[in-house]
Amino acid sequence: MPRLYDFLPSGNGYKVRLLLRQLGLPFELVELDITKGESRSPAYLTKNPNGRIPTLELDDGTCLAESGAILCYLAEGTRFWPADRLERAHTLQWMFFEQYSHEPYIAVVRFWRHVGRLTPRQESELPGRMAGGYQALGVMERHLTGRSFFVADRYGLADIALYAYTHVANEGGFDLGPYPAIGAWLERVAAEPGHVPISWRPGAR
Amino acid sequence: MPRLYDFLPSGNGYKVRLLLRQLGLPFELVELDITKGESRSPAYLTKNPNGRIPTLELDDGTCLAESGAILCYLAEGTRFWPADRLERAHTLQWMFFEQYSHEPYIAVVRFWRHVGRLTPRQESELPGRMAGGYQALGVMERHLTGRSFFVADRYGLADIALYAYTHVANEGGFDLGPYPAIGAWLERVAAEPGHVPISWRPGAR
Repeated sequence: MPRLYDFLPSGNGYKVRLLLRQLGLPFELVELDITKGESRSPAYLTKNPNGRIPTLELDDGTCLAESGAILCYLAEGTRFWPADRLERAHTLQWMFFEQYSHEPYIAVVRFWRHVGRLTPRQESELPGRMAGGYQALGVMERHLTGRSFFVADRYGLADIALYAYTHVANEGGFDLGPYPAIGAWLERVAAEPGHVPISWRPGAR
Repeated sequence: MPRLYDFLPSGNGYKVRLLLRQLGLPFELVELDITKGESRSPAYLTKNPNGRIPTLELDDGTCLAESGAILCYLAEGTRFWPADRLERAHTLQWMFFEQYSHEPYIAVVRFWRHVGRLTPRQESELPGRMAGGYQALGVMERHLTGRSFFVADRYGLADIALYAYTHVANEGGFDLGPYPAIGAWLERVAAEPGHVPISWRPGAR
């Protein structure tokens, strides 16, 4: 059974847990507390040299890092990964957008506020991070206007990747009120068969 | 003929130009000066709603954004994209690593210094950005020690993605001296058939 090294509050980890659940694939969850440095231990660094979660460890001990790469690996040949070449490319486009233009703003601000009081350095970076987050939300809102899902109007990896941190953006202080297309899309994603919340662990119903 | 919207000093654009050249695919280059806001014009935003380069426009007008997605689209079915599922996943792992843990440090610092004098805000962020860049270089050095290329010991997309900004890291003030495995890998990549420098335009020899 594959083993997932993860930290439950992480949206990056949640993407993988959600897909595993929707694929019906059993897995063992190994929880690491990244706020206590547990993803930087020498033993863990042999599995993920960049010291981050999630990491998927296969039965033969092979490890795979980066949520986007794990999602693609798991989704190949399933309904979550398009059969069409251009649709695959557009799926990857939104997944790279998420990691470069969305996560460093929306997820990072949520993490700062989730952990507690902002440091002076974080406080000084906050306006830029908030602006970057709203820029990403604006791009999403325009794309979703008139569309049901990100690619080919079918639920897939791009939706999983972008849902993970968008649906908890309010925990970072982002107001999703002015983004009705995003709001309707969040509801559609949450209504997909097998959907589970970010705090879900395997074994839980 | 596909059209590539690009800015020559960009490593993200260079990744696509290098692959197009090595695939022997002709394309039209449309240069935008991102320092003058040319990637934020209303006309360009219809092609790339995130206002960034590169964008690949296909013959039918379909546009594809995000260098990583464009690379995968172009490389499918070629020697640059592995036939093995796990090797594909590891290729994506390094491509997502590059966009999340390497580019925001090494490329951003180079861009700041390339444009000219650092702003006070950039000056205050510089130590953290430099530390992040060296962290990424450390991960690369450990992985490349004893390996010729990033995945399956064959030149491919992961190498193209990571070469683009690593080979000009010195322009951001990074010292590659303490990274001999990276140095040897840079030489191997530059010796690949069809290699061209970052400033290469189609039509040039």
